[in-house]
Parts: sequence; structure tokens; C-alpha cells
Amino acid sequence: MIIPRASRLTPEQLLEVEKIVSEFGCRIQTIVGAERSIYAILGDERHETMINRILGLDYVARVDAIDSPYKLMDIKSTLADGKLRLGGVEVGAEPLFIAGPCTIDPKNPNLFYETAEAVKEAGGHVLRGGVWKPRTMPYSYQGDNAALDILLEARARTGLAINTEVMEPEHLSIVLDAGVDVVQVGARNALNYPLLRHIGSRTAGSNTTVLLKRGRPMAPVDEFLAAAEYVVSAGNPNVLLCPRGTLPSMDGYRNHPDESITQLLKEKTWAAVIVDPSHSVGRAAFVPGAALAAMAYGADGIVVETHIDPKCGIGDDPKQSITPATLKSLIADAREIWKLRRKYSPTPPSS
Amino acid sequence: MIIPRASRLTPEQLLEVEKIVSEFGCRIQTIVGAERSIYAILGDERHETMINRILGLDYVARVDAIDSPYKLMDIKSTLADGKLRLGGVEVGAEPLFIAGPCTIDPKNPNLFYETAEAVKEAGGHVLRGGVWKPRTMPYSYQGDNAALDILLEARARTGLAINTEVMEPEHLSIVLDAGVDVVQVGARNALNYPLLRHIGSRTAGSNTTVLLKRGRPMAPVDEFLAAAEYVVSAGNPNVLLCPRGTLPSMDGYRNHPDESITQLLKEKTWAAVIVDPSHSVGRAAFVPGAALAAMAYGADGIVVETHIDPKCGIGDDPKQSITPATLKSLIADAREIWKLRRKYSPTPPSS
Amino acid sequence: MIIPRASRLTPEQLLEVEKIVSEFGCRIQTIVGAERSIYAILGDERHETMINRILGLDYVARVDAIDSPYKLMDIKSTLADGKLRLGGVEVGAEPLFIAGPCTIDPKNPNLFYETAEAVKEAGGHVLRGGVWKPRTMPYSYQGDNAALDILLEARARTGLAINTEVMEPEHLSIVLDAGVDVVQVGARNALNYPLLRHIGSRTAGSNTTVLLKRGRPMAPVDEFLAAAEYVVSAGNPNVLLCPRGTLPSMDGYRNHPDESITQLLKEKTWAAVIVDPSHSVGRAAFVPGAALAAMAYGADGIVVETHIDPKCGIGDDPKQSITPATLKSLIADAREIWKLRRKYSPTPPSS
Amino acid sequence: MIIPRASRLTPEQLLEVEKIVSEFGCRIQTIVGAERSIYAILGDERHETMINRILGLDYVARVDAIDSPYKLMDIKSTLADGKLRLGGVEVGAEPLFIAGPCTIDPKNPNLFYETAEAVKEAGGHVLRGGVWKPRTMPYSYQGDNAALDILLEARARTGLAINTEVMEPEHLSIVLDAGVDVVQVGARNALNYPLLRHIGSRTAGSNTTVLLKRGRPMAPVDEFLAAAEYVVSAGNPNVLLCPRGTLPSMDGYRNHPDESITQLLKEKTWAAVIVDPSHSVGRAAFVPGAALAAMAYGADGIVVETHIDPKCGIGDDPKQSITPATLKSLIADAREIWKLRRKYSPTPPSS
Repeated sequence: MIIPRASRLTPEQLLEVEKIVSEFGCRIQTIVGAERSIYAILGDERHETMINRILGLDYVARVDAIDSPYKLMDIKSTLADGKLRLGGVEVGAEPLFIAGPCTIDPKNPNLFYETAEAVKEAGGHVLRGGVWKPRTMPYSYQGDNAALDILLEARARTGLAINTEVMEPEHLSIVLDAGVDVVQVGARNALNYPLLRHIGSRTAGSNTTVLLKRGRPMAPVDEFLAAAEYVVSAGNPNVLLCPRGTLPSMDGYRNHPDESITQLLKEKTWAAVIVDPSHSVGRAAFVPGAALAAMAYGADGIVVETHIDPKCGIGDDPKQSITPATLKSLIADAREIWKLRRKYSPTPPSS
Repeated sequence: MIIPRASRLTPEQLLEVEKIVSEFGCRIQTIVGAERSIYAILGDERHETMINRILGLDYVARVDAIDSPYKLMDIKSTLADGKLRLGGVEVGAEPLFIAGPCTIDPKNPNLFYETAEAVKEAGGHVLRGGVWKPRTMPYSYQGDNAALDILLEARARTGLAINTEVMEPEHLSIVLDAGVDVVQVGARNALNYPLLRHIGSRTAGSNTTVLLKRGRPMAPVDEFLAAAEYVVSAGNPNVLLCPRGTLPSMDGYRNHPDESITQLLKEKTWAAVIVDPSHSVGRAAFVPGAALAAMAYGADGIVVETHIDPKCGIGDDPKQSITPATLKSLIADAREIWKLRRKYSPTPPSS
Repeated sequence: MIIPRASRLTPEQLLEVEKIVSEFGCRIQTIVGAERSIYAILGDERHETMINRILGLDYVARVDAIDSPYKLMDIKSTLADGKLRLGGVEVGAEPLFIAGPCTIDPKNPNLFYETAEAVKEAGGHVLRGGVWKPRTMPYSYQGDNAALDILLEARARTGLAINTEVMEPEHLSIVLDAGVDVVQVGARNALNYPLLRHIGSRTAGSNTTVLLKRGRPMAPVDEFLAAAEYVVSAGNPNVLLCPRGTLPSMDGYRNHPDESITQLLKEKTWAAVIVDPSHSVGRAAFVPGAALAAMAYGADGIVVETHIDPKCGIGDDPKQSITPATLKSLIADAREIWKLRRKYSPTPPSS
Repeated sequence: MIIPRASRLTPEQLLEVEKIVSEFGCRIQTIVGAERSIYAILGDERHETMINRILGLDYVARVDAIDSPYKLMDIKSTLADGKLRLGGVEVGAEPLFIAGPCTIDPKNPNLFYETAEAVKEAGGHVLRGGVWKPRTMPYSYQGDNAALDILLEARARTGLAINTEVMEPEHLSIVLDAGVDVVQVGARNALNYPLLRHIGSRTAGSNTTVLLKRGRPMAPVDEFLAAAEYVVSAGNPNVLLCPRGTLPSMDGYRNHPDESITQLLKEKTWAAVIVDPSHSVGRAAFVPGAALAAMAYGADGIVVETHIDPKCGIGDDPKQSITPATLKSLIADAREIWKLRRKYSPTPPSS
């Protein structure tokens, strides 16, 4: 990983670096951060001569070789110094709250607009809403492009950043054209590597954030981080890791709550962890407990399904959406726990 | 379940009731609570004539038939009105903190005495300490009766209530003779029904509390409550339910954290839930997160392995015991979360 | 589901049927079988008037309404009568053996050609070989289009049908252009619905078979069948269901062997089950046991990683590939068990 | 582990050996095999001087130090040479079949006698029948001592060896007084170490066999072998290891079938593996598949719930017992697979 002295390499400098690494069978992948870019050497980056020649360039500050399977996601990676701003929040410096319905009902746009206003009023930063849905059965409602217009209109009305899930490249093109702020990859696509790589390269150098859900089996931390590495190594460092419960489920819940993985992730990566308690427990009455537990485990925020009138929602909303009133109370309490929790971090803040 | 008008039936009244139910093939099990006793009808308790005859007795206030597989543990059972006092705390009215080493080292009693004083100073209510240990290997240290004297001496010095695990009837006799306050049943014996029944009947009518760990597989709520029903139906209603992580483990932890079961338990039973975060995560740095998450899920308290100098401990202490300083901070924060959490209970306080 | 009297509807007949169902908000999906086609009514197919009008057409033999979430995969579906021929075998009438390396090494084509000849000699029907590989890490070898030429050459030399995995639409186009016989969808894409639907529609009416691996979490039978329903409802009934072990793994194996799901699948669907013991156990010495167990559970065949010289293989081959000599012995024994097992089928053969 | 030149040490020789090891803080545990005894050194057996002094005794053939956590169960242990005869079978030299009802119904002894005759006729070697039952609920039928008389009478009538489960020392005394051939420890007591040790020492030097079920969580091989080590190190080497399905269950089965653990066990231990397919799948129609799969994985036998008229059985019989006719066919096919499987053993027979 090449860290330049200035915030970015000039095109001429980049060309010079690329020429050097290509002699050693490597290539350069630019990772464009908000404040500065860094330059990953893909291939076997341990050639001593190659590193020495790059270090000899006066516009290069440092070359870091991270001995980790996921060298960009690793906590020791230079990316750890990057900052991600989203919905008016510097992620990590204060908790992030993403809320909104599971699925946007294109027949009832007002329900969504009212929910959006209520999410804002409750203190949410990002508005979520499903346009397309991965559905177990091919005959179930699969979403509707018209819902995207509703999501965009809600952003225009509230000023909230917006978040929606994509399942294929066609979706991605549509949402990127519309300037959606957060692109979500669902649990079923958590290891769909072509999609992850495609999202990373299509959003390289943009402000788009990628919210990456954890896969459904009780997969190891390393696999989760490696999936994020696909996005980041393709050029976009703005990733959020989202545990959402695993299978086999705990009897009485939709999945087995897994917010506890937060502190295992934090031990290994710099990336923010935003927990989804709604899919984890799958019942509205149990969401607040799971949301607060996520904060207790050190999460940087939560993504909570919220609906102005859950029983009128579609998709998972009737069962697992909480009301804006509950959300408001939950946000206040989550902030308190976020503060209490900081002193116990496995990797305590240096200050 | 027969609820008398007075706090208890007189021997003559009990005899009269027993005579009636025996005509219908049932028998009476007295459940002795701190403030009053109730009388379970074991057998098919739904004979209308039998119930009518009992209701006709002027010293009987009510006969409750609970339509639940675990009629005494059920949240609708009369036992829900009972109060359990332990270590100076009314359980449920404020959080309960049990702390101390995994295993008492009989060669170093002072380490235990110092830990006991530190637990008290940190705000703990009950002092835990293993006298005997269920060990995977027959050749490992299996405990030492001498350790019980150390535990008793620590109680004498600090005034803390004391807690230790028993694995067989011989252990139980020894600890009951010594007046141990809390008898713990470990995860490996969670479904050892003869032992559970034996403990329930040997402690019937006493102040002894039984801390029942959850079994290690990801067992359903009903199985956990049914195990507690063995103890209670044998005569002792003073049970605490203790989740402690399940198998298969989450990669990076000793078990899969399962504090989330707390709110599923609370939906079905009146019994207090005391979570063990130490066995759940198995690494000291991760214990505070798990402990606070338990409170966020609505636990009534925690049991945390604590040692004055973990690296000098035996058993699990070097890996998973926290220090008294961490315990003190944890207790303060746990109290805060306990307060925040109350408003979200699936069964909210009536006030 | 409309079953015509003749083997297929004429274009004019199809148009007439489509006109009727469109009046009721439904549409027709043709499922092209080897011997005849059937016509699924997508949408709410239970309108009595609609069904009566279709039944009134003299070229329609029957209209079946299957009350099942996966109406085409259901064992009661008309598709149960279809026959699938692959590699010279009528699947179901005798066991099918798919074998070959995990990954084709483009630098050593001869290893692959020799393995192909040996697979044929051992009695295999289909030759497997990975051209592209879903890899946990973005920096690992991801496959090489050149490997496809090697696979095609091996088919030309041996006459075996060939099988390779696709992860994205680009791969699919390439393999369909090349006339690959079996398109494999891996465990990571088991619920990648856009890909499944795309494969189903691109291969509709062709002889291409789709081998669908089970997802990695211990997912229910219904989810597996619903994933296959995506392929079939898009037009291609030639699906093979492939259990390959689930997570969490059994300690000592790569996954938790799940060949036992075979008889649960057979109870609900007509589709053939081809078990992959290699990924299930992940160690060559343990593959034969798992392969024979699959036959004992009623599998219609197995797909086994085989390499002429496993230690010279790439990908998973050094660890989990068996030799052709073992394959030959295994095929003979698998045939024996296949015969023994038939009398115990949960859905016994009608003869 | 001390192996004497003769089949056993004389009392004087044993005394001499005990005197030596006691100088080094160790003690001797005699393991009484059918043909000869060996003498385990408990404690730190690696003192060179101690070993040399023992080797100097002319009646000592060998001293083996096994570097394994379970030194007696280990495949390299001297116990591997022992032979276990049960029900007329030399276990390991031909497959062993244990069959009979889940639970003996004391009200219908004839059902049991008829089942016993049918089990014998079908080719079974050992007759199983539950006298006492570990039941999830304290109010369920817990068994009846009278059932033991029925079991003994069935042995008298058929000559079959008999097998029943014990849950506590009181049960053990009763069955040992009655001379029951196989004492079963159920899954709930799989890690009840005091019970295991008690059984081992009470049966030391006898012909009694201990059938040890695997615990219900997906526990590692090492834990299973360590549990058996408790029995063996207490003096009885006649143990059978019995996988019976694990939790979390596979949707559609009672547990997750785990017969695949057989080959992992066989890699590490000399002990025979007898699989229980009945509890694994929990449905009679699925038992034969699981039973044959167990043989394919290299099991030394099976224990199958069988009832002359399953729907008239109690306990688990109506759901999971097969008929004697199915048992007969199953035994024949299991023998075939047992033969086929032998050539693939991870530890192939030396001949």
C-alpha cells in the first residue's frame, strides 16, 4: 500500500508507479478516500527491490505491507485513518441511525413520506427503504422500480440520506444514476463476489457508501472481512459492516442474534459496524433489546426497520417494524449506551 | 395450584386437602416461598369435582389451573408473585451481581480472600467460587473439599452470600450442611433430572437459591424452563435461570453468546434471569461488552468471573476473569443500562 | 399448469391460451421438457372461470393446480413425469457419476486430459472442472477463461459430458456459447435469485442441465426447493439438487455432512439429488465414506472431486480429490448400495 | 500404561508396582480386560526414573506412554488389542445389531415379549428396552422398576443380551444386581462425569458393556472420547460409542444426523462405534436410510428402535420404531454395506 506525501498522486506520478510495479507482475488499485487516496499494490507486494524503488520516489511518504489476508480491511491498514461522513455524521465519532420500512409500497407513497418525516424527527440520519426484494419464492412480490422515485422524493422532502438494496448490476446502475447515498448488499449476496467487485469499481472515487450485510450461516469473521475486501480493493473504502443474525436461528427469533460479533470485528478491522436488530430477532417487541445490546457490544450504529403504521406495511414490516415513537426513545438510549461502552473497547481510543 | 387464604396451610388443612386429591389419583407438592406457600396438585389436576371440593374449603382462596407444560414456572403461575431475596437484594427490583473466581485454589487461600473483599468493595452481592469442577478430562484437577472452607471463611469475612457448583448428591449434602446460599447446577448437568429433582427436594422450604445454567446446545426456551420446573415442582421456588453461551460457538468466542434468550424467557416465565458473560465469550477483554448486552436484553443480573490477579488463577481464571477494577466500573454501567432497558420489556411493568 | 394433449402447443394454440390468462392478470411460462412441454400459469392461477375456459380448449388435456409454495418442483407437479438424460444416463433409472478436478490448471492441461481419460475409464458420466472459482479472498486465483478450452478439448477427447460453475451472466454466455452440458451454481450463489432466473431463461428449451448446490447455512428444504423453482419457472426443468455440507461444520470436517437431506428432498420433489461428498468432508480419505452414505440415503448420484495426481492439483484438489483408482472402486460400490437402498424409499417405486 | 508379561499381575506384583509409582505421586488403575489386564499410571507418568524402575521388573513386558489427552481411549493405546464379545458377536469382526422398543410398557408385557422374539428372529444380537426414561417434563411418565422384570424375562425367553439406560446410581445398582449386559448412558448424561466414573468403577472387572451416547450439541470428537475415558479409566474398557444426532436439528428430522462422525472417531480411537439412527432422524420411514448410511461411514453396528406394533408403543415408539420385518431386511443390507465399506477405512485392517 503506497501512501503519497500529498493527498493524492498526480496522473504522471501514478503512471510512474504503475510502470515500476508492472515490472514485478503487480498492478496498482487506487482507493479514493474522502481526504486522500492511497494506492494498493495488487499481486505479490513483497519484492524488496520493487519496494525500494517506490520508496525512492520523493512524492511517496510510505509503503506499508500488511501481513493479513485482507490487507485493506485490516486494522493496521492505512485506511484506518480515513473518515466516513454519512447523513451529517462522522461515522465512529457519534452513533449512526438508519431507519425506515423494509419495503416501499408503491401503492401507498404517503405511508413512506410520513415515515420518512417521522424518522427524521426521531433523530435518524439515513432513511432506508427496499425498492427490490430478494424473495425466497419466485412468485412473491419482487419490488418495483417506481418505488425508487418515492425514495428519492422522500429524500427531497426530508434531506435525509437514503439507503436501498441492490441484487444485480442493473439495479446498481439505476440507483447510482439516481445518486442513492447508501447501496446495501443483502445477506443472500454477502458472498456474491462478482457483484461486490462490480459495486466497488462502479462506486470507486464517489461518496457512495456500501452497507454489507453478514451472510446467514454462522460464518467466521475472516470471511466477512474478506467480502468487504472485494469492495474496497475494487476502489471504494466507504464500507459499513452489518451483522443481521445468523442461522441456525434461536427458537423464538427469526435468526440467532449475532451483535456480539461486533467486538470480534473491531479487534481486526477499522471499518464501522452497523447492526441490524430487526432481521436478527424478527419481532418488533424484541427489537429494542437487540438494538441496545448492539450498542453495548460497541456497534457504531444500527439500522432499524421503522414504519409509521407497521400493520399497514408490506414485506417484513407488519412483523418486525417498530414505530417512530419507539425509534425516538431507542435513539436516545442507544446514545447513552454508546457513551458508556467506549471505555471497554478491546482497542481503546488512543486519547 | 392451591393458594390458601393465609400464608400457609396448617398441617391439618394440608392433610384434608391431600385426602381429597388422592381420591382422584393426584398428590400435593408444597412449594415453600419466603412469604407464603402454595400447593401444587401433581397428576391430572383438571377433575372438576375435585377442584370444586377444594374450592369449598374455607381456608382456600383460589385454585389455579395453568395450561402450560411447565405450570409452576409459567408467567401466569401464582409463583410469579413471590419475592426472592439474595445477598441483600430483592431480585428483580434491582440488578443482582454475582462475582468471584472460576475455581478456588486451595493452595492460595489469600488470593481468594482478597478477591472476596474486592468483589464486595466493587458492589457485588454474591461471591462465587468453584469447589469442585466438572472437567472434560478425568485426569484434570477435579476440585478439593478443602476449598469449601475457604469459601465459608470468605463469607465470614465479607458478609457476602456465597455460590458454588454441585455435580452430585454427595456435593449437595456437604454444601447444604455448610449453609451455602446459592447452589449452582452447571451446563453439563442442565438436564440431569435426578440431580435437579434431588436438589429441589433437599432444599424445599429453605432459603437456598438454585442457579441453573442453560445447557450447551442451542436448546429451546421450553426445555430450559422444564428443567427449572424439576427443581420447583420438587419444592423449591428459588430458582435463577442462567444463560451462558451455546454451541456451536461463534468463531473467536468460547461459545455463541446467548444473552438474547433473556427476553424470550421473560415472555414466558416469572423467574429471574442472571446471565454469565464469562463462559459465553471466554476472553476477559470481551466480558464487559457481553455483560452490558445482557442488561440491554433485560437480564436481572450477571454472574462474572473476577479475580484479584487473573494470571495467578486456576481453571478458567487466567483467560476469562476480569479484575475487580473492571467489575466496579461494569456494575455502575450495568445499573444504568438496567434502568434504561426497563421501558422496553416485552412484559412492561404495570405502573 | 397446463398439460396439452400433444407433446407441445402450436404457436397459435399458445397465443390463444395466453390471451385467456391475461384477462385474469396471469401469464404463461413455457417449461420445455425433452419429450414434451408444459405451460405454467404464473400469477393467481385459481380463477375458476379461467380454468374452465382453458379446459374447454380441445387441445388441452389437463390443468393442474398444485397447492405448494414451489408448484413446479413439487412432487405432485406434472414435471415429475419428465425424464432427464445426461452423459448417456437416464437420471433416476441408474446412478449418475460426475467426477473431475476442483479447478482446471491452465498451465498443466495434460493433467486435466489424463484425469478426464481416467474418469471415463473409472465409469464416470460427466467430467467436472472449475474454470472460474468463487474465492474468499479477492487476491486469490479467480480462474481463467483459457481453462474452458481445456475442458472442451477434454470433452472432445473422451466424449464425456462436461460441467463447470458460473458466477455471473458473463460466464454463462461463454459456457452456453461453448455448449457446456451442465452449468453449476455454487453454494455462495445458491440464493442469488437474479442469477438463477437468468440461467433458467437463457437455457429454456435447451438440453442444458443446471446443477444447483445447497446454500451453506443449515437451510430448510423449502428454501432449497424454492431456489430451484426460480430456474424451473424461468423455463428450464433440467435441474439437479446438490447437497454439499452445511455450516456450522463438524469438527474435523470442512462442513457438516448433509447427505441425509436427500430423503427429505425426495419426499417433496421429483428432482434428482446428486450429492457432493468432497466439499462436505474436505479430506480425500473421508470422501468414500460420505459418498457411500449419500447412496444409502437414496441419492441419484454423486459429484466427486477426482484428480490423476491430487498433490499436483490446484484449488481444493490437493486436500480433497480422490484418485481415479479410488473413484473406480467407489462407483462399483455406490451402484451396489443404490440397488439395496431402493426398497426403503419414502416414496417407493410404484412397480 | 503397564503391560505385564502374563495376562495379569499377581496381587504381590501389583503391590510392588503401586509402591514404586506412589513415590512419584502417581497411582495405579487396573483396567480389567476379558483376556488380560493392563495397569494405567494415573498422574504424571513421564518420570524417567519411575519408568525405568518399572521396566526393571521382570514380570513387566512394556510401559507405554501415550501422548494423548485420552490415553486409554487413544487408538495407539494398548487397549486397542482388546476384544469385546457381546450377544454372541466379537464386536468389530462382524456388525452388531441392537434393537427393541424405546420404552417397555409395564402394562403390556406381551408386546415386549413378542418384539423380543421378533428381534431375535430378524437377526438382532442385543435387546434394548427402556425401564426408566429421562423426560423433559417432570410430570411425564418416568419409567417403572417393574419394567426391568419384563426385560429380564425377555432375555430368559430369547437368550438375547439386554440393554437399558440408567440415569443415576440407584438405577445402576438395580441393573447390575439383575445382571443386565449393556448399561446405556443417554445423551443428557453424556457429560455427567460423576455418573460415568461411578459406572466405570462399579463395573470394573465385569463383563458389563457401557453404551455411551454422544451429547446433543455438535460437540467435538475429543469431548466424546474424554467422556468415555472417564468410564475406562475407572476400570471398565468395554465401551461402545453411540452417535445419535446433534442439535441444532435439520429441519424435518428430530436431530441433525451425525453418523458421519464415525470415521472421525475411528481415526482416533480403537473403540467400536454403534450408531443410533432412530433418535437421529426421529421418523420410522427415514430410519433405514440413516442406518445404512451409518454402515457406509464405517460403523460397527447400529441400535435401532423396533416394535412389533409401533402405534401401540409408548415413549418414542409410535413415531420412530420400525417393524421387525423392516429390521430383518435392514440387517441383511447393513451386512452387505459393512463388507463393502471396509476397504475404505481411514485406518485399514492390516491384513
